[in-house]
Amino acid sequence: MYLKRSPLAPDQFPVMPDIAGVQIWTAESGAKYKNRPDVLLVKFGQDANVAGVFTKSTTPGAPVEWSRECLARYANGGLLVSAGNANVFTGRKGARDVVKMAGFAARALNRMPEDVYICATGVIGEPLDLGPFEKLFARNSFMRSHASWAQAAQAICTTDTYTKGATQTCQIDGASVSICGIAKGSGMIAPDMATMLSFIFTDANISRTLLQSLLADLCATSFNAITVDSDTSTSDTVLLVATNKASHEPIDHIADPQLAGFKQALHKLMLDLAHQVVRDGEGASKFIAVHVSGAQNEKAAKTIALSIANSPLVKTALAGEDANWGRIVMAVGKSGEKAERDKLTIHFGPHLVASHGFRAPGYDEDKLSVYMQNPELEIRVDVGVGPGEFTVWGCDLTHGYIDINADYRS
Amino acid sequence: MYLKRSPLAPDQFPVMPDIAGVQIWTAESGAKYKNRPDVLLVKFGQDANVAGVFTKSTTPGAPVEWSRECLARYANGGLLVSAGNANVFTGRKGARDVVKMAGFAARALNRMPEDVYICATGVIGEPLDLGPFEKLFARNSFMRSHASWAQAAQAICTTDTYTKGATQTCQIDGASVSICGIAKGSGMIAPDMATMLSFIFTDANISRTLLQSLLADLCATSFNAITVDSDTSTSDTVLLVATNKASHEPIDHIADPQLAGFKQALHKLMLDLAHQVVRDGEGASKFIAVHVSGAQNEKAAKTIALSIANSPLVKTALAGEDANWGRIVMAVGKSGEKAERDKLTIHFGPHLVASHGFRAPGYDEDKLSVYMQNPELEIRVDVGVGPGEFTVWGCDLTHGYIDINADYRS
Repeated sequence: MYLKRSPLAPDQFPVMPDIAGVQIWTAESGAKYKNRPDVLLVKFGQDANVAGVFTKSTTPGAPVEWSRECLARYANGGLLVSAGNANVFTGRKGARDVVKMAGFAARALNRMPEDVYICATGVIGEPLDLGPFEKLFARNSFMRSHASWAQAAQAICTTDTYTKGATQTCQIDGASVSICGIAKGSGMIAPDMATMLSFIFTDANISRTLLQSLLADLCATSFNAITVDSDTSTSDTVLLVATNKASHEPIDHIADPQLAGFKQALHKLMLDLAHQVVRDGEGASKFIAVHVSGAQNEKAAKTIALSIANSPLVKTALAGEDANWGRIVMAVGKSGEKAERDKLTIHFGPHLVASHGFRAPGYDEDKLSVYMQNPELEIRVDVGVGPGEFTVWGCDLTHGYIDINADYRS
Repeated sequence: MYLKRSPLAPDQFPVMPDIAGVQIWTAESGAKYKNRPDVLLVKFGQDANVAGVFTKSTTPGAPVEWSRECLARYANGGLLVSAGNANVFTGRKGARDVVKMAGFAARALNRMPEDVYICATGVIGEPLDLGPFEKLFARNSFMRSHASWAQAAQAICTTDTYTKGATQTCQIDGASVSICGIAKGSGMIAPDMATMLSFIFTDANISRTLLQSLLADLCATSFNAITVDSDTSTSDTVLLVATNKASHEPIDHIADPQLAGFKQALHKLMLDLAHQVVRDGEGASKFIAVHVSGAQNEKAAKTIALSIANSPLVKTALAGEDANWGRIVMAVGKSGEKAERDKLTIHFGPHLVASHGFRAPGYDEDKLSVYMQNPELEIRVDVGVGPGEFTVWGCDLTHGYIDINADYRS
């Protein structure tokens, strides 16, 4: 199926610097896609530290299980990503295939197989055909020249309609530090996990333990705060690689004041990539921010925000540019979290639509209709109970989502 | 919007007997719909017992709050249902309007207002215009002749594409007993509540307490085991009225062996109505039964079954007649319930598609494709952990759902 570039896509792929200690190659295996790169190979420098978060699915793919083990043994050799077949629910063969893929990559990178992270997304349940990869790595001709970040981002795409990249620079202790990240994802996107695939690289000099806690912490309000369709992938993985090549002193404590700028830059980059995934939500025509306040606590606020952002009735109304705020009331009500109906306040952008359990006095359907035509909408809901706040980003539900998913495999 | 009759609709509305002690009228208020009844008025005999279950939404409508109070004071006068405006999130005016509606009905029925249950479904957040109802009840001309069950079922519809009714007869202690029920519902349908609107009448002679416990018990595996779009309504109500006119001795204990036939007949009727609601799922082209076994317990089985039945990716695949069982694996994985990936077994109807964490050996995509063309599909999943089983009924997600919901209010 030919997929049109999402109307919510950014204008262009950003200009992204090289990261010292990271080498990138891409290749066309031809396994599923033709005339586009579908394999990404990355080599990390010997000093690199790696942090990772993975799907919370109880039916994870073989690559996720392998990469989780890599992380546990502090593997830092490199990374092989393939697109088109997720190698999920493929039994013992799937597990053996991952070891073989790691073997191919390890020989190419001159590292040990157990040192190479493996990631894959695509169809679930289809046994992997190793043939094309075997052929590719027998020649290794794709390694003659390095790939660009844009090519790397392209190589990991499946139903994505555009490539996703982001970059930030910051200072640590006077030294300039760069962060570059790429991501893929468009459907089977739901929070409460380490969403889709994203690979982030920095030359910062940060200890492994600190890197891991930073990543887990910042995921909560970036990748884990987005939803396209409430469906959690079996392959989701975010890896953060610090090559430790920057000229500042090593940082190993979360409270180190030198870390503040980096943490902020990293969160900005992760949020940027997370938003790019939502903007490529299958069939999406609206980018929606749902901000819930006044909940019992942060967790309750997130549950309510997700109940709104995942409601098919809310999502179809937004697609139809219908300010049907009654469905927001419904979604708050079904969340199961405490809410004071008679203190409930709802804004669409700057427009107050409901307050104190009633339609707002100055409610103006015409003004609201004009606002609803924006491609980016903000819904703010205060449930009047406590101090809990959370923001979730999602998209609308259109005919495009059904077109894409009613025959994804064909 | 003109809605085509669902392709999954039953051939015709059943022939349903009168229930002694129940009188029915319908009327056209013209408040929202034209040329169709939109008001249902029912009078119960003085001896009637009433049981009820209501939405678990924390933002329930004013009619739900009123009817809940009616139930608490053993009200048994009658019932007024209006279609088109749910009178939800309408503040103090909404609550006052319910009292007025009860007043209209009470005068017409020669009962006290606090004795009349009020139900409504339709748009949320729109203040009710009492004018048309006031006019209607001033004349009361619609009460000159009784309505049929089919007219009653018609009067409570909103986006329904057909009227829903079911009847059963059984014996209690040698006496013949009838049960008649009607229901409405098509969208904003999700379980774990007392779903949509349904009114069930029987001439059986059963105590109020027993009636309530029967209704709550049987809802769990009928109305509370269906889903159209995972969105829980703010108006859902099921009322069960026993007029106690049948010629058997009163029954007041759940263990009474005379109750067995009635309980079975009532469950059959409730399941029938629940299935009719799913078959009228907005835009539905497939009726799906999801049976989960091997879960830790019944609750876990239900969570997994709902995760499958509510997954947009599963639902769109079914709409596309694509046996994409990988998405079933995904939905099991995201449910959060314990499942043994390597013992997972998945059937589509009679076809084993996956076993032991792998595609089934005899997997035949062509045979499966033929099966997927059926309008009624069965998905059976065993997760290999324990004795828990549950069945959920749902439907697919098609362009029709988006057409209906992108501009419901216009």
